[in-house]
Amino acid sequence: MEGVDYLAAERKKTEFDVEEMKIVWAGSRHAFEVSDRISKLVANDPAFRKDERTMLPRKELFKNTLRKATYAWKRINELRLSEEEASKLRFYVDEPSFTDLHWGMFVPAIKGQGTDEQQRKWLPLAYKMQIIGCYAQTELGHGSNVQGLETTASFDPQTDEFVIHSPTLTSSKWWPGGLGKVSTHGLVYARLITDGQEHGIHGFIVQLRSLEDHKPLPGITIGDIGMKFGNGAYNTMDNGVLRFDHVRIPRDQMLMRVSRVTREGKVVESDVPRQLVYGTMVFVRQTIVQDASCALSRAVCIATRYSAVRRQFGSQNGGPETQVIDYKTQQSRLFPLLASAYAFRFVGEWLNWLYTDVMRRLQANEFSTLPEVHACTAGLKSLTTSVTADGIEECRKLCGGHGYLCTSGLPELFAVYVPACTYEGDNIVLQLQVARILMKTVSQLSSGKPPVGTMAYLGRIEPLMQYRCNVQKAKDWLNPNVVLEAFEARAARMSVSCAQKLSQFSNPEEGFAELSADLVEASVAHCQLIVVSKFIEKLQQDIPGKRVKQQLEVLCGIYSLALLHKHQGDFLATSCITSKQASLANDQLRELYTQVRPNAIALVDAFNYTDHFLGSILGRYDGNVYPKLYEAAWKDPLNESVVPDGYHQYIRPLLKQQLRAAKL
Amino acid sequence: MEGVDYLAAERKKTEFDVEEMKIVWAGSRHAFEVSDRISKLVANDPAFRKDERTMLPRKELFKNTLRKATYAWKRINELRLSEEEASKLRFYVDEPSFTDLHWGMFVPAIKGQGTDEQQRKWLPLAYKMQIIGCYAQTELGHGSNVQGLETTASFDPQTDEFVIHSPTLTSSKWWPGGLGKVSTHGLVYARLITDGQEHGIHGFIVQLRSLEDHKPLPGITIGDIGMKFGNGAYNTMDNGVLRFDHVRIPRDQMLMRVSRVTREGKVVESDVPRQLVYGTMVFVRQTIVQDASCALSRAVCIATRYSAVRRQFGSQNGGPETQVIDYKTQQSRLFPLLASAYAFRFVGEWLNWLYTDVMRRLQANEFSTLPEVHACTAGLKSLTTSVTADGIEECRKLCGGHGYLCTSGLPELFAVYVPACTYEGDNIVLQLQVARILMKTVSQLSSGKPPVGTMAYLGRIEPLMQYRCNVQKAKDWLNPNVVLEAFEARAARMSVSCAQKLSQFSNPEEGFAELSADLVEASVAHCQLIVVSKFIEKLQQDIPGKRVKQQLEVLCGIYSLALLHKHQGDFLATSCITSKQASLANDQLRELYTQVRPNAIALVDAFNYTDHFLGSILGRYDGNVYPKLYEAAWKDPLNESVVPDGYHQYIRPLLKQQLRAAKL
Repeated sequence: MEGVDYLAAERKKTEFDVEEMKIVWAGSRHAFEVSDRISKLVANDPAFRKDERTMLPRKELFKNTLRKATYAWKRINELRLSEEEASKLRFYVDEPSFTDLHWGMFVPAIKGQGTDEQQRKWLPLAYKMQIIGCYAQTELGHGSNVQGLETTASFDPQTDEFVIHSPTLTSSKWWPGGLGKVSTHGLVYARLITDGQEHGIHGFIVQLRSLEDHKPLPGITIGDIGMKFGNGAYNTMDNGVLRFDHVRIPRDQMLMRVSRVTREGKVVESDVPRQLVYGTMVFVRQTIVQDASCALSRAVCIATRYSAVRRQFGSQNGGPETQVIDYKTQQSRLFPLLASAYAFRFVGEWLNWLYTDVMRRLQANEFSTLPEVHACTAGLKSLTTSVTADGIEECRKLCGGHGYLCTSGLPELFAVYVPACTYEGDNIVLQLQVARILMKTVSQLSSGKPPVGTMAYLGRIEPLMQYRCNVQKAKDWLNPNVVLEAFEARAARMSVSCAQKLSQFSNPEEGFAELSADLVEASVAHCQLIVVSKFIEKLQQDIPGKRVKQQLEVLCGIYSLALLHKHQGDFLATSCITSKQASLANDQLRELYTQVRPNAIALVDAFNYTDHFLGSILGRYDGNVYPKLYEAAWKDPLNESVVPDGYHQYIRPLLKQQLRAAKL
Repeated sequence: MEGVDYLAAERKKTEFDVEEMKIVWAGSRHAFEVSDRISKLVANDPAFRKDERTMLPRKELFKNTLRKATYAWKRINELRLSEEEASKLRFYVDEPSFTDLHWGMFVPAIKGQGTDEQQRKWLPLAYKMQIIGCYAQTELGHGSNVQGLETTASFDPQTDEFVIHSPTLTSSKWWPGGLGKVSTHGLVYARLITDGQEHGIHGFIVQLRSLEDHKPLPGITIGDIGMKFGNGAYNTMDNGVLRFDHVRIPRDQMLMRVSRVTREGKVVESDVPRQLVYGTMVFVRQTIVQDASCALSRAVCIATRYSAVRRQFGSQNGGPETQVIDYKTQQSRLFPLLASAYAFRFVGEWLNWLYTDVMRRLQANEFSTLPEVHACTAGLKSLTTSVTADGIEECRKLCGGHGYLCTSGLPELFAVYVPACTYEGDNIVLQLQVARILMKTVSQLSSGKPPVGTMAYLGRIEPLMQYRCNVQKAKDWLNPNVVLEAFEARAARMSVSCAQKLSQFSNPEEGFAELSADLVEASVAHCQLIVVSKFIEKLQQDIPGKRVKQQLEVLCGIYSLALLHKHQGDFLATSCITSKQASLANDQLRELYTQVRPNAIALVDAFNYTDHFLGSILGRYDGNVYPKLYEAAWKDPLNESVVPDGYHQYIRPLLKQQLRAAKL
């Protein structure tokens, strides 16, 4: 960061220790140190430049990604990076590629679902990238409903092989990343058939391309599924389409850790608990929640810095105009998102702990907490990704017109992020799963079995149903217990209200379908409570650094009171609070905005993002926005010539009234 | 539309006369006939194909737009189209281009702000497109605040010329469409200086490029500002940057209808009322509201049709799975947007009438209704564009994963639409303007001057403050008067509450700033009331066709009750309704979803959009989605070769462990 710091005056206002906040954000001093070192390594290597990405046509874009991903792997080996460092390096390269699926899905699935023997055979090849794998589950006609997949894997006892086949057009594999142009192998999910009997969906390792010339093997049709939302963004990835015409693979390429097919074609279950898949799911979803806090914090960092740079209206006596960050309308949209980024960071940290805890319990054959853990991870995945997708777009709007330029970084961030609302479980489908478990929990309250974990509050259902908020002045809302109780009461009452309505239906499934929109609302209320409570728990820890904890308390207040204001309909309809108390919460919220204002820049500096990673002229650390925007404009391909290609064919004949003869 | 209609079973369920609904949607039989004819003309002309648009790199994309725009002009002349038909043709070509600004801003501004003499000189050139004009107002450092523009136009009495100059980097013109590569002339807004004195912002016609070789004239630097959000989308437009280095233009190129500069350099006001600019503003904003209903209805059409095609879960005994449109969660997200598309269509129609009314009043020197008209158009622009931008993205999510593909049409529709939230007044800035007028109106209630137009209800402030909703069962919410009163009471009470809080500040401006987030909420409530009331008014008209009016009544109910549910916090906090009544409204809403369900496909068919205009495989009229998605994938440039470019340089060395020697 050389040159003038146009945000220096802002940074001088900071009231807390930014360096200590960086540690809090990173999770530990070690995590900070690794992130800091690797992010700078990537930022300083011109091979990882990404400022031209949004201008590249598809083929060039894709080729460039192949180069970067391969170069990254080369550097990982040259520098002998640890697994943690390698993963950080891929993260900071910040470009979706086939390696994401290879490392993030193919390798873990073999680890989780392969037998020891299968792991010994396939993992060394995958670890050295002598084979490249993808995860071929979703089909043209089936995404959410995995049990509806149509691809078949029929056991042929004559040859001891499976025949993988795509019986219909809609059974074509569709979407798997890395499949379209790169992967040599796929983990293909298909309907197992032996002896004419169906045995559900299983995973099979299928070689897709020749290791010699990269051509698809006989019987296999593969291609890329075409352009996706946005410039750059996920178009660096070869999401693919794949069809099988009776492709044969050896029997031992079915992943057989949980069930296996014998030489005779019998399906035999192993004694490995099937619930282990929940462990993988918790792991994947905690990663998604971490990613949400990362994506949201990037957008917030850009919007916050540019809101301090940008001035509009309010000039007095010819002085400078007002920084837009000083407008309450800007604050009321921006600061809740800043607070959400921190909130999601902490709930992600907690989910990481939960994963360890779950794995420990699973290994001890303790499965009782699984439904609650499942609900909690599904709900948090849904909540955080929805808020983040909307939040990135809100940040873009908060940057005014310039947010619409690709050089703001926000359009690409949005386009690359939004699939998170759909993959790994559509967000609405997930909330309905949460609702189902909530309803079950409520219906069992009288059974004497106390609800556990994030549903434990439902065990106190009677006091929560009788609860009346005792806030009398705005400042009372600063008490975390007051906030927590209000959120608990609201969530509990919404669940109970749904359960009561459900009980009026003679057919419970019909009732669930009919009331599903209300059930989603109850589920969201429950998930918001989890985030609020984990933020409050975080603040009960010892947090060093001058006024660091105080800043986090302000953010926690903003997070919860902004939610309370946004959903005041819930709180009022369930009579948890009075309209006077809702109004006091809003007054307190405004006051908290004023408190966070001088620290806003430092709070986004604490994310410790390099300008390379942010990829945004509006979000530059030094605030030197306008000259850099001006400079960047000239790099557009359209500016290669002063007179545009097409002038002589189209514009000139138009101006000269000579269109009749023109070839158009 | 040849071949099988996969949506035929849906269309058979229709309970109303679709052909009559098409007339209602179009506004009149004549409007329907013109739209229908011109949209088919465009759809059937292969020169207007747009299915490859999202794959083209910028230069090719832009050149292709030049071709289409020029070809469209050629066809307009060959077919001797009327102004109405020509404008419809440009609309159905559906590709932003320089002609939008030429016809939509340059020509109208000369008409509105030029003297008769200036109009006689410039309009004939513009009408024949012998010159191409753009509207150069926004600068790098100034968007919302027009009075802050920095470009100067200094009168030089020696030569009888203005000197146009860009004194700072931030004074560079930035964003004007058509400027970057095409326009020969610009309507440049600059700070008028004569004899060392500033005289505010005025418009000047400046020739930018040579009419012979298209090169920028001396002292002028022009370029394109670079890539914007999305594939295709607004990247077909050459939004430009422009700097002046003491460029001289004759004095008569200042637009002088309202004020003029004399030979001696004196600024003289004419007797033309300045309020005439409001007329233009009302016109532009009613166009934006019409565009909102168009963009939202396109997205809704795509999502509705695909929701009927797509099946997921719920298969029983091996039968087909459930159409996703049958899920209440899908309905509760989709149907309110369908209703909003109709609601915005009708409020747009009413705004069109308002424009005629305002012009009549202005010509009669009657200015008293102007503040209310200004508030109403500003607020409706803000409300409808925000809902539409969010609604398009919601429709994309409602299509599941496939909505993320460019071939769904939704990514481009979103990217091309979202600037509407920022241009012609940032949506939040506009709501604050509405709030200002609302506060003034409330403060003057005791003065005996009754509020007019859409604020007339505030004249009944006493009954509205005492109002108690008397809904006792769900069906009571079907009464339009009940709905209207609740919305009036809510809006009135929110305004009054803000006014009361404002009065506690000694400095009103400080109070306005501090409370601005609440003021925006009050303003939104007021604007929602306008839309609800205009929908209800529409239903008081005579609407022919079997059950057409009944369908619209269902949609009106969905529009208002979905809003009531979403904003129940407002209604409860202001004690307009009880939580029991809110719950009844929600019950009634679910019932209305069931009523609209069998008619959903027909209600989007009534928009009468061609498959060309929709530009979406998911939204195809015939529902033949999956084969066409599969077919389209192969057209991606990445599929030109089976083995991708980059295999030999990157993938092969990676697989063969030969990276050390590889050039990356």
